[in-house]
Parts: sequence; structure tokens; C-alpha cells
Amino acid sequence: MSAQAPHNTLLIPGPIEFDDAVLQSMSHYAESHVAPGFVKVFGETLTLVRKLFQSTNPAAQPFIISGSGTLGWDLVSANLIERGENALVLNTGYFGDSFGQCLEIYGANVTHLKAPIGDRTPLEEVEAALKEKSYKLITLTHVDTSTGVLSDVKGVAQLVRRVSPDTLVVVDGVCSVGSEEIAFDEWDLDVVLTASQKAIGCPPGLSIVMTSGRAIQAAQSRKTPPGAYYASIANWLPIMQNYENNKPSYFATPPTQLVHALHTTLTQITADVPGRFAIHTEVSDKVKAAAAELGLKQLASRPECQAHGMTALYLPEGLVPADVLPGLLKRGVIFAAGLHKEIATKYIRFGHMGVSVTDPKRGDVDNALVALKEALAEAKQAKGL
Amino acid sequence: MSAQAPHNTLLIPGPIEFDDAVLQSMSHYAESHVAPGFVKVFGETLTLVRKLFQSTNPAAQPFIISGSGTLGWDLVSANLIERGENALVLNTGYFGDSFGQCLEIYGANVTHLKAPIGDRTPLEEVEAALKEKSYKLITLTHVDTSTGVLSDVKGVAQLVRRVSPDTLVVVDGVCSVGSEEIAFDEWDLDVVLTASQKAIGCPPGLSIVMTSGRAIQAAQSRKTPPGAYYASIANWLPIMQNYENNKPSYFATPPTQLVHALHTTLTQITADVPGRFAIHTEVSDKVKAAAAELGLKQLASRPECQAHGMTALYLPEGLVPADVLPGLLKRGVIFAAGLHKEIATKYIRFGHMGVSVTDPKRGDVDNALVALKEALAEAKQAKGL
Repeated sequence: MSAQAPHNTLLIPGPIEFDDAVLQSMSHYAESHVAPGFVKVFGETLTLVRKLFQSTNPAAQPFIISGSGTLGWDLVSANLIERGENALVLNTGYFGDSFGQCLEIYGANVTHLKAPIGDRTPLEEVEAALKEKSYKLITLTHVDTSTGVLSDVKGVAQLVRRVSPDTLVVVDGVCSVGSEEIAFDEWDLDVVLTASQKAIGCPPGLSIVMTSGRAIQAAQSRKTPPGAYYASIANWLPIMQNYENNKPSYFATPPTQLVHALHTTLTQITADVPGRFAIHTEVSDKVKAAAAELGLKQLASRPECQAHGMTALYLPEGLVPADVLPGLLKRGVIFAAGLHKEIATKYIRFGHMGVSVTDPKRGDVDNALVALKEALAEAKQAKGL
Repeated sequence: MSAQAPHNTLLIPGPIEFDDAVLQSMSHYAESHVAPGFVKVFGETLTLVRKLFQSTNPAAQPFIISGSGTLGWDLVSANLIERGENALVLNTGYFGDSFGQCLEIYGANVTHLKAPIGDRTPLEEVEAALKEKSYKLITLTHVDTSTGVLSDVKGVAQLVRRVSPDTLVVVDGVCSVGSEEIAFDEWDLDVVLTASQKAIGCPPGLSIVMTSGRAIQAAQSRKTPPGAYYASIANWLPIMQNYENNKPSYFATPPTQLVHALHTTLTQITADVPGRFAIHTEVSDKVKAAAAELGLKQLASRPECQAHGMTALYLPEGLVPADVLPGLLKRGVIFAAGLHKEIATKYIRFGHMGVSVTDPKRGDVDNALVALKEALAEAKQAKGL
């Protein structure tokens, strides 16, 4: 039984349901951000981020900063690219558009390679683009929250190293870290930016960014100063290094309660990282099979483009999200409406991440599949479909 | 009795002790950031921020953003001033230096008017500076956390309106909002930026910024695009307006639990805003009198320069913070060491804000004064002073 007040089950692609212990950490009593107790917790949390990314390379550097996931885009754009340099955005939806806008604010020349809705850009196209001009960095959205499309991070990283080895590989992992496999060192990635409130299972309010030695080197060898103050790697790097070495340090006050909550959830997650990916795949397969049985088509076209922490489902012809979501809510289940502006009214999104997946006693996913079946039938009947 | 686990009393100039109800709000169950329940809470919280600032002008606009107080500097620097424009920083310590650095990152020409340690810049000097060149904005730190020096916000604002009416008046209120009087409309301020974890009494992780219609106008009439993406007023303005009008809206996921906690504390605070300032003054007077009785001199030279939510105290000759702070900790009380780099080893800082001041049943301040007396005596004895 949960210690939480009774509430509808939140199965959107983030924020997600939280474990009781994580929420308890959120109400930790007041602590000084530079006192030994908190310094130890913050330092350990940084080390747990390394474990989450299966990284053992000491040159890699995690950052945990008060902010939304979006702040990670500024961290990349203000530090790793300079005015007039080129950025290649592999665009699989809403979040590719926005990351591109952020890069442009800081002066990057952005080229978008837009994939058709529900698909990813073929590697051959990426290769051709990389050969056309010199890119300082390439970005890809690991899972696009708006569509549930999964990108081929490992494949893109391999391609970049072969064709344009100095280009930094930047992964927007807001909707993937904690539910999709990421081997930071082995895949030779340069940045994975994420947020706390999706598959990591911590309330929103933390921007979490993993960087390679190569990325830090790029930030440190800029010809011009960084483009931001709060999002400056130069300002945060010594802080993160000091805390992980158990030394207090100050640039801005860290969100102590959120850091405790992150510590709690990462301790749970990192007890078995491969096992976590396996259970997310297993439950995702179940969701996708059940949706197919209900005659629902996924936005993500082919199985290899389908995320394991969420599923975006086209509604039957004649139904819009507002026909179905209230029926789900009546049954205690919250899904999200569509977000991709071209097709927002045609589909719904089901998030299956974190404790709803890893704790079978909750029954969240099974209940949601029953609720979905009933709500759909009800909506069809109401519309005479 | 508190529902919190037993812990030493945190009496540093932020974070501060939290009310039980505020901490309970931090463990609120998962909610969608665009669902009616949370939209209502976020909208109400924005309205409560107006009340906190005693503002009724609909042209004024509050912002609540996931981030540290420091993020407010970027919000100002990236939106309200353009490359090559002039900024005047009234510098009363550490935080004036840093705000100046932030402004420079975004291309402002910064002039510092440095006050001597423990004092503020005389209004005549500010007036002379304002007459020398045209300043887009002037910044002042209402209470410098590093020294406990209180600035004359009302006086500076009046002066600016008289001498240079178009100059934006920007107040860093991180260490003042909630404990020092601020009448946003009446004093005709343009920006007060603050954070959640000091006298507002909410855990750290929220950047709270109040802006005037004039400031919004300045952001909207820029000749160049804003200098940041996450800290862009253009990106956040419609979000804040929509939430306050009870409409969900998305730019970045808000920190739902922290917003609940802010709602809880602001509901408490805004029940009696003038009363809150009065009690902080009363308790501050008591602290300062008790310190004088112990023979301790304040950093802030004259009474009108002394903050009401914290007191920075020079230690007796021959003692450093490390001689006294452990004795306080032994007695269950946490003060902060010095922060101003020129004199950091010569003084300690005592934060008296929020529930430690407003809830006399806690006895926090009285206990701290006893502990301070004993710890000082012990330290002197140990050093043979």
C-alpha cells in the first residue's frame, strides 16, 4: 500500500508516479547546502548519475542543476558551440524544433534533418549531411515525448565517429534516461541531457546533464566567453567536482530536497541498471501488443523506432483525445493528449515508466490497459462508431 | 511539536527552517503539470506572489521558474538590456560582483559603485553616476547575504525616477523578500528577483521574479533577440499569463511539488504581510541588542544599513568561525561562516527569518542567543582570551 493520498494514476510521458520513499525524501528537513550531511548526499548523487549512464571514465562529468530539462539545451548551446558554427539537428518532432530554436538563440547555424512523423532520419541521410559541411555538434532526441519515436543513438554515434570524429554527439534524453539503454562511455557520447521527472522517477525540478571529457574540453577551449551565466559550464564544473570530492562549494543554492529525492531514486535504479531496461522493454511489448489487439496504430512506425517508456497511439477515425481521456480519468487513469502540432487531435500518449513498470504490485499498467479498452468502447458507442 | 525528524536548527541566511505544512506539500503525489488541479494551484501561486509584493497593478507580471535565485540574474541580463548598453551596479558585496559578471556575459557595459564593507553607496554618489551617462538599468542588492547590509531600495527608486526616469530599477531581493518591506507598485520598481529558500520559507529550487509593465515593455521592444532560451521572458510570459488565467500551457515542465510548497507558504505569509515585516523587525532588534550585549560588532555599520532577516557579526579579536561554529552545533544551532572574501574569517552570519521568527513556540532565536553566548565563552576560554 502506498503512503500517498488516494489519487488517479499518472501515466503520461512525465511527470510519472513516484515511489513513496522518493516523495518522503522531498520533505527532508532544512539543511545547509554546504554542511557535511548534504555535501555527502550531493556528492553520492553525482556518482550515482555516472552509474545510471554506465560510465566509469573519470573524464566524464555529471551535472545536477536546479531547473527544468529545457535548461540542458541552454547548457549545450551556450557552452559547446560558438556563434557561426554549425549544428545538425536530427528532428523527430516537437523537441527537435525547440532545441534548434535554443541553438539559434546562442548564434549557431542550425540545419534540421526532419524525419517523417513517426520515423527517424535514415543513417545514410545523416552521413550525407555530415559530409556536406563541418558540424560542431549533432543533436538527436532519444525519445521524442511528442511522438514516442525512438532514435538510434548508438548507430548515430558510431556514424559520427567514423565520418566526422570531432563533431560532438548530443543526446536529448529527457524522455529516455532510465527507461532506454544508454552506455555513455561505450557508445562514445558527448552529452546526454535529461530531467528528473520522467523515467528517473524524481519530481520535476532538476536538469541532469552527463558530459564527456571531449565536451568539457570544447567548453574550456572556446574562443569566446560562454553565452550564459546560470547555464555556464565554467561556473558549475568546479562545484560538481568539489561536491563529488566531498568538499562544499558555492555558485547557486542547490535544491536540497530534490537532490535527496534523486539520491533515493538513483539508489533504487542503479541496483540493477540492465534489469531496469529489460523490465521496461517487457512491459512496453505488452502495452504495444494490447494496443494492437484493440486495433490502435502507433505513431512510431516500425518496431525499432518505438520507445519503451511510452506509447503514442492514433485514435480510431472519428475520435479525438477529448472523447477518450475523460473516460480514462473516470477509471482513475491519466493519459496525455497529442502534442505534435500537425496531428495533435488524432492521438493520445501513454507513459509507462518507473514504479508503474518496475513495481508489479501496483498493477498500474494492467489497470490502464483495461481502462483504455473500456473508455474506447464507451467513446465509440457515444459517437455511434 | 514538529512532524520533522529531530535535527539541528538551521539559522543561516538561507535555506531556513521550514514549516511542517510546507514540507508536507513537497511530498505531494504525482500530478500532470497541465491538469486542472495543478493549473489552479500554479495560477493561485502567481496571484499570491503579487500579494507578497503588495502589487495590484495588472501590468506587473510575476514569474515562477524552476531554478536557483541566480537564474533571476540571467532573466534580467538576457532580456532587459542589450549588448553595449550601460548597467549601474550598486555593489554592497559578493552578490553585486556576481550580478555584474552575469550582466557582462550578456554584453552589458557594467559600472560598479562599490560601497565600503558594511555600508551602502550614498544617494549623492548614485545621483552623480546617473547624471554621467545613460543607464538602461540599475541593480541593487536589497540585503547582501554576505554582509547583512540593507540597501535603501525606496530611496534609490525615487532618485532614479527623478534623475533618470527610463532607467529600470532592478532589485536583487534573494535575501530580503519575505523579511524586508517591499511595496512593488508604490515604490515604482521594475524587477525584484528572489528565490524560494530564504524568508519565503520554501525549499530551494524556485526562481521568483516580479516585473513591472515597463520591464515587460523593455523585453518586448528589444532590437535584438533575447540572449537566452531558458531565461527568455518571451518564452515564459504566455505561460505565466495562461496559468494565472487557469489555462494549461507548456514551455518547460514546472516543478509541481515545489509550486505546491510555495503555495502553502505564500498562503501563510500573505495572510498578514505588514505583520510579517513587523515581527521580523522586532526579532531582529532583539538579536542585535543581544549581540551588542555580548560585545559583538555588526558588519553593517549603521542601523539603517542593517537587515532584519539576518545579522553578520564580527568575532572577538583572536577568534575565527571555526572556533565558534562547532560550539553552536554542539548546542543544536547552525550559523554560517563569513562569505565576503576580504574578511571571511573574521565574522559569522545568523539568519533569523521565516518560521524561526514568526512561530515563537519554536524558541529558535532565543535558543540560538543562549547557544551563541555559551559557545563564545567556551571559545574564548579555549584560546585563553
